[in-house]
Amino acid sequence: MKTENKELMKSRLRNIALQIAYDGTNYHGFQRQTPPTLAIQNVLEDKLTKIFGDSIELAAAGRTDAGVHAIGQVVNFFTNGKIPVEKIPLAASGVLPSDIIVLEAKEVDKNFSARHSAKSKIYIYRILTGAVSNPFVSRYAWHIRYPLNVEAMRAALKILIGTHDFSAFKAANNVPMSPIRTMFNAECEIKNNELFCDKELIITFHANGFLYHMARNIVGSLVAVGRGKYSVDDFQKIFESRDRNNAAPTAPPQGLCLYKVFY
Amino acid sequence: MKTENKELMKSRLRNIALQIAYDGTNYHGFQRQTPPTLAIQNVLEDKLTKIFGDSIELAAAGRTDAGVHAIGQVVNFFTNGKIPVEKIPLAASGVLPSDIIVLEAKEVDKNFSARHSAKSKIYIYRILTGAVSNPFVSRYAWHIRYPLNVEAMRAALKILIGTHDFSAFKAANNVPMSPIRTMFNAECEIKNNELFCDKELIITFHANGFLYHMARNIVGSLVAVGRGKYSVDDFQKIFESRDRNNAAPTAPPQGLCLYKVFY
Repeated sequence: MKTENKELMKSRLRNIALQIAYDGTNYHGFQRQTPPTLAIQNVLEDKLTKIFGDSIELAAAGRTDAGVHAIGQVVNFFTNGKIPVEKIPLAASGVLPSDIIVLEAKEVDKNFSARHSAKSKIYIYRILTGAVSNPFVSRYAWHIRYPLNVEAMRAALKILIGTHDFSAFKAANNVPMSPIRTMFNAECEIKNNELFCDKELIITFHANGFLYHMARNIVGSLVAVGRGKYSVDDFQKIFESRDRNNAAPTAPPQGLCLYKVFY
Repeated sequence: MKTENKELMKSRLRNIALQIAYDGTNYHGFQRQTPPTLAIQNVLEDKLTKIFGDSIELAAAGRTDAGVHAIGQVVNFFTNGKIPVEKIPLAASGVLPSDIIVLEAKEVDKNFSARHSAKSKIYIYRILTGAVSNPFVSRYAWHIRYPLNVEAMRAALKILIGTHDFSAFKAANNVPMSPIRTMFNAECEIKNNELFCDKELIITFHANGFLYHMARNIVGSLVAVGRGKYSVDDFQKIFESRDRNNAAPTAPPQGLCLYKVFY
């Protein structure tokens, strides 16, 4: 958002926050792209502009990458549009494609920013295990056909809890920013889906912020622990080295989902 | 399969049966189509031909419609190819797209036909309930945003159990065949997905055979019962009228899944 625009936006009457869910498979990430490349933000701003009648510019809690999903993304925008909040989810479902959904809408304080007011976020990463994949989960999970040692993965995750320098798991060409983050919780749950006869690992990360690619870089090294390529000690040494070059490759995007944002 | 081909096929050494799962969203049903229209069968035959080295022709338990899914589809084919059965699922996953998966392969008796040897089948139909949809389920379920009376739907399903004339739920332009089928079980289960905060109804039909569009036509009228448009008595009268014109419109394909075939 340009600076001159910021004041114009804030002069509007209402600040609306939405909780959004999306299947990111067909989009080039959340952040607005130059058409014909399509991002979630392009679609949302275009359709919300139709609903509210004034040109909508969004701020979002998390700039999810291409192929990453969300069930708890939060966005906010300023508008003079008069539609009552309780009617927004249904109005949005009438104009949005079926892979982007407004779950909830609220009118919030003028100072609320979906991006800057966020206190912490939960990302989940789904791993589908078993010899062959599953067509109903493969859009939303990383399929690993090798056996994984879940107890070793859990031990590795425990190392991340607390306030640490996460440089070992930042993106290779990251923009300069503090690599210090506080991880409140990092755990791995086994989930059996009886209906589709599959077994998943659900990895949950709850932190006060995430470096670019951090969750996927952690999962890349975590799976190396699960497969026995790294010991838990190796994982700890990589983490403490603060050097991205020591860690395993980034896990693929489709397993990642922005699950919840706390304010 | 042409008649002259049938003998040629049976002269081959092995009869292989596969259990297949697929996400039917991007295909024009199971049954082979003339390219560029693409069916599951086109893709399977093309890729299995590459694996086995001789031209593969499939028979399938169920000819699922465009957009319908399967987790327990069974196919069989004759081949002289020598690949061991236990290696087929992995070999297939190397050449098939991610939305079609071979779950299991078996060598079977020469007289086994995935289509003609089937004794009964289970289809499931998923209904996603709630004010707004869910992008992770919407490819695999019919979203109904109105409240549904599940007890009334269950009472209606009970009427179908037993041996009956299912003409009221056949396709409008059905090919002539006996409309008598035996429904072993028809039930509706409520399933909460905690991970994605949604609520589904899973309708299960187990019958010795299904008329074309039968499961989706039943669901169309069943949802009319759930919404209170039909009483359970109305549903029974429609069923007993044996007249397709009295029943509700066909439910959309994406909720339907061929779940299991019994031999």
